[in-house]
Amino acid sequence: MRTFKFVRDPNAFELMADDTRRRVIYLLRAKEMTVSQIASELQKTPQGIYHHIRKLLDAGLVEVAKEERVDHFIETYYRATAEVFEFIHGEGGSEKYGEQRTREALQALKQLGIDARADDEIIERLLKISKQMNELALTPEMEERIQSLEGLDFIGKKHVADYLNLLTMSDKQFEEWLNFERTRRNLLKSAVSGPIQVQVQNPKPK
Amino acid sequence: MRTFKFVRDPNAFELMADDTRRRVIYLLRAKEMTVSQIASELQKTPQGIYHHIRKLLDAGLVEVAKEERVDHFIETYYRATAEVFEFIHGEGGSEKYGEQRTREALQALKQLGIDARADDEIIERLLKISKQMNELALTPEMEERIQSLEGLDFIGKKHVADYLNLLTMSDKQFEEWLNFERTRRNLLKSAVSGPIQVQVQNPKPK
Repeated sequence: MRTFKFVRDPNAFELMADDTRRRVIYLLRAKEMTVSQIASELQKTPQGIYHHIRKLLDAGLVEVAKEERVDHFIETYYRATAEVFEFIHGEGGSEKYGEQRTREALQALKQLGIDARADDEIIERLLKISKQMNELALTPEMEERIQSLEGLDFIGKKHVADYLNLLTMSDKQFEEWLNFERTRRNLLKSAVSGPIQVQVQNPKPK
Repeated sequence: MRTFKFVRDPNAFELMADDTRRRVIYLLRAKEMTVSQIASELQKTPQGIYHHIRKLLDAGLVEVAKEERVDHFIETYYRATAEVFEFIHGEGGSEKYGEQRTREALQALKQLGIDARADDEIIERLLKISKQMNELALTPEMEERIQSLEGLDFIGKKHVADYLNLLTMSDKQFEEWLNFERTRRNLLKSAVSGPIQVQVQNPKPK
């Protein structure tokens, strides 16, 4: 089992929306288990769990750990492919998915007392900037290379990814990246009417 | 169990370095369990697991889910406090810890073929900038408020945090933040001698 894995397939992310599938993954991070062991732990039918496992295998979130011959049949043990999945969106991912996520976040700002327009134009422009920023980011090959570094845990690898991101951009690319952040902020501000003041419930004393 | 929890205590993060403790947390994300159930799943002694649970409780990573009376004694079921822990460093965290993490990341760059100096001066300056950038970021109260948003999953909340971060900074703070990024990059570049060319092993065709 790897420490972390970058997952670019938006379908893989959607699989994680299901409560039982998430629990299956948590179990398979703790130990290698068969379908019937998982079913008994989660009090579900083996058929149902088998169905989930097939989907998780296809998406690369779970893998076969070992196969053991018991009497006349073979028992398959599964494990999660990584302790942490890093889901990466924007590039490759379906346009509709990104649209939906952006709209959802803009609308959620209302719950915080910030009145933001969530119209198609704003969303399209925000998505376009994210896509352009993604193109400046680390390549999948570099991320794989960081993953393979020895003697570093998850947080250590995140640190390295951060440094490498800053170091591998050219001066021009870096200034472009800062400008994208500026444009993104201006766009968001233009979508908000009224003051930007977050309603904090039950503020805790520091 | 919450979707995610921001953990600011550096000791909590250190607890996660232990393999068994991480497995205990994975199990307690999948279902509520007693110490003896966990021990039997992980093939460890109940005494050892109890010891880990005490530490995890103290750090707020695990909580009591329910207590059941069985014959003459009470069985305690535990669960993880969140499906995802977001560890936040820099502020509050011990100086020594941040130093160690920064040094480790700079040294790891060597494995990638980038020769970066990891001396005290560079490390101290990088840490100072991170601290200053953290001061511009969302407050714990705002993060709690995002956590409490309804109808949003983990990724949705990350999106909102990103937007809120951009929106709540003043123009001056935002430009300061961009400048900190610029300074951080220049510092890193000044620490590197030789070309910045990442050695990618086994590059995969796109």
